Amino acid sequence: MSNRRDFFRYGAMAAGAIAIVPVLGSCDRQKKAGSAAGAKLSLTFYPYDLHLKHVFTLASGSRQTTPVMIVELEYDGVVGYGEASMPPYLGESQETAGKFLSGLNMSQFRDPFLMGDILDYVEKSAPGNYAAKASVDIALHDLTGKLMGQPWYKMWGYNPDHTPYTSFTIGIDTPDVVRQKVHEAEPYQVLKVKLGLDTDKEMIETIRSVSDKPICVDVNQGWKSREHALEMIHWLNERNVVFVEQPMSKTDLESHGWLTERSPLPIVADEALQTPKDLLGLKGYYSGINIKLMKCGGMRAAHAMMNTGRMMGMSVMMGCMTETSCAISAAAQLSPMVDFADLDGNLLIDNDIFDGVTVVGGKITLNDRPGIGVVKI
Amino acid sequence: MSNRRDFFRYGAMAAGAIAIVPVLGSCDRQKKAGSAAGAKLSLTFYPYDLHLKHVFTLASGSRQTTPVMIVELEYDGVVGYGEASMPPYLGESQETAGKFLSGLNMSQFRDPFLMGDILDYVEKSAPGNYAAKASVDIALHDLTGKLMGQPWYKMWGYNPDHTPYTSFTIGIDTPDVVRQKVHEAEPYQVLKVKLGLDTDKEMIETIRSVSDKPICVDVNQGWKSREHALEMIHWLNERNVVFVEQPMSKTDLESHGWLTERSPLPIVADEALQTPKDLLGLKGYYSGINIKLMKCGGMRAAHAMMNTGRMMGMSVMMGCMTETSCAISAAAQLSPMVDFADLDGNLLIDNDIFDGVTVVGGKITLNDRPGIGVVKI
Repeated sequence: MSNRRDFFRYGAMAAGAIAIVPVLGSCDRQKKAGSAAGAKLSLTFYPYDLHLKHVFTLASGSRQTTPVMIVELEYDGVVGYGEASMPPYLGESQETAGKFLSGLNMSQFRDPFLMGDILDYVEKSAPGNYAAKASVDIALHDLTGKLMGQPWYKMWGYNPDHTPYTSFTIGIDTPDVVRQKVHEAEPYQVLKVKLGLDTDKEMIETIRSVSDKPICVDVNQGWKSREHALEMIHWLNERNVVFVEQPMSKTDLESHGWLTERSPLPIVADEALQTPKDLLGLKGYYSGINIKLMKCGGMRAAHAMMNTGRMMGMSVMMGCMTETSCAISAAAQLSPMVDFADLDGNLLIDNDIFDGVTVVGGKITLNDRPGIGVVKI
Repeated sequence: MSNRRDFFRYGAMAAGAIAIVPVLGSCDRQKKAGSAAGAKLSLTFYPYDLHLKHVFTLASGSRQTTPVMIVELEYDGVVGYGEASMPPYLGESQETAGKFLSGLNMSQFRDPFLMGDILDYVEKSAPGNYAAKASVDIALHDLTGKLMGQPWYKMWGYNPDHTPYTSFTIGIDTPDVVRQKVHEAEPYQVLKVKLGLDTDKEMIETIRSVSDKPICVDVNQGWKSREHALEMIHWLNERNVVFVEQPMSKTDLESHGWLTERSPLPIVADEALQTPKDLLGLKGYYSGINIKLMKCGGMRAAHAMMNTGRMMGMSVMMGCMTETSCAISAAAQLSPMVDFADLDGNLLIDNDIFDGVTVVGGKITLNDRPGIGVVKI
């Protein structure tokens, strides 16, 4: 069967006389497509450390920096920017990304518009490395958008007025500091907290003592029994919580199905969903999905997952890591189609090197620039 | 929950003080986006009857014409073309399409790039009417592609060299006429036949007496028992058949699952699949899907279904009705990503009014024109 399929696609099977297929001359096509004769893709990259405004605390430890890799993909004098963000607990690093990117032969491609072929090559060049893969995907989208003179949200037909509010993360801390952080979050309309510790109720009550803004809850697999999880969800539901992300272990599909059946709030898959191949298996177990460019490998995969998630009847959320405005602006191109957005990664650092999407009155605000809409500062 | 979702999306829920959100002035945006101040969408349409080169025979009767509706969507002096094709047995007609299109208020839209909003409006304006809806979707894609100066296959990142061969339909007839038709099909590398009658084996044997080209089989729900279907499939598999489309009733999911489990050939859903909402339910019952613009409502839905079909591990086929080169060229924009194509609708008529994609050596051949790549003859 695959041979027959290949025949259809490339005419490789000899059944009946097969004519030589004259196609358009590649030079003719390239000229009209805005490509340049003789030009080819050129990839460069360098590490950069993001400095967090506040120390970031997780069960696995505390840190004040996040390592990223900045990517530049050049073609005929036009540069597309990309970024890989690699929080240490996810397994990638500047070293692994550097090794992955060094192994790519991008100069074999003389037409940046063959995005399907190029990104298939990147995907297949090594397993894993999804943040590094996302950096190339983002840079290629930025480059082709610039070559076409269009922002991606427009090519996808999204209304820039329909961008969502972004939630803003309030880190776990002492009650006094939490109250202070909530005050500092005044420009944002939705708060996000990470639960899954002994202090869950205290954290929510501390926030509620100073704000009645909607809260998104991310448990990061922290709750150990479904009964406790359901009790907490009901408690949270009475306190204007919007959804609960990954309440239990990502490997425990069945408990999430049990919760989704009973929960008054959406149960959103985060750790349980990485790439498109994971998506269909979540049907019936979760009611929402959190898509992140660094998990799935970039804008192309994210866009396909969003469409499929919609067909599955899922709520769709777009999340991020700590990132510059480069990767955040890339994610924001897709944000008019999501239900929930957590795109605050660039707001948490004090050494951004890109100017891109902004947050105005708590709402993600796209600009008219082509590609992903960024300029380097 | 839907209220909370709406809050995220449009800031409608009062929880915490909500700032007035200043967004980019629409004039500024429109100007940069290539739109024109004061311009609006204008829709016109007229009926046209396609004349078939050969009388077309189905179980339901014979005919030599297919009614279509040609649509023109104008914006700021640029015209996008669309088409609805309405074979009578599918329930739409020039009358129903005219009524549907007359009911649309397209001039409310002043920015053609808000494709998501516009096509959501078209979709929701009435149930059914998928060919009529497809005509607007195609015209809008043609229009926006022209305004951006790009063909859609390029914006989607598809390699125009990866277009498939199209199959060419050999109508059921007497052995002498069938042999004659096979000779006339010399430019095409793949043949397609409709089975499901008492003459199935005779038809295949007649073709095989003069050609060993691969054959695609469309049963149109014609086989009544799964055992007979499986026996026929094995017989066909020995005669270089590529796949079998809709062997049994579209309502009999279970028999198709039984066949898919046992069949050496892909079992492709056609009548069982209309719109995106049907797709996920086919998992495990079919191994392939036949997507047609006139069934699903246009290029946007078709593209999303293709991505999801891929995630489901399905073979993806693109089909058509009898159509001018307008709707065929629209479908062809997506064809580099399909496994099988049956895009011969324009080849079967002798009064085409568009020049668009061509078939060269049996292979679909895209051009560099923007939008869907057509000019009116």
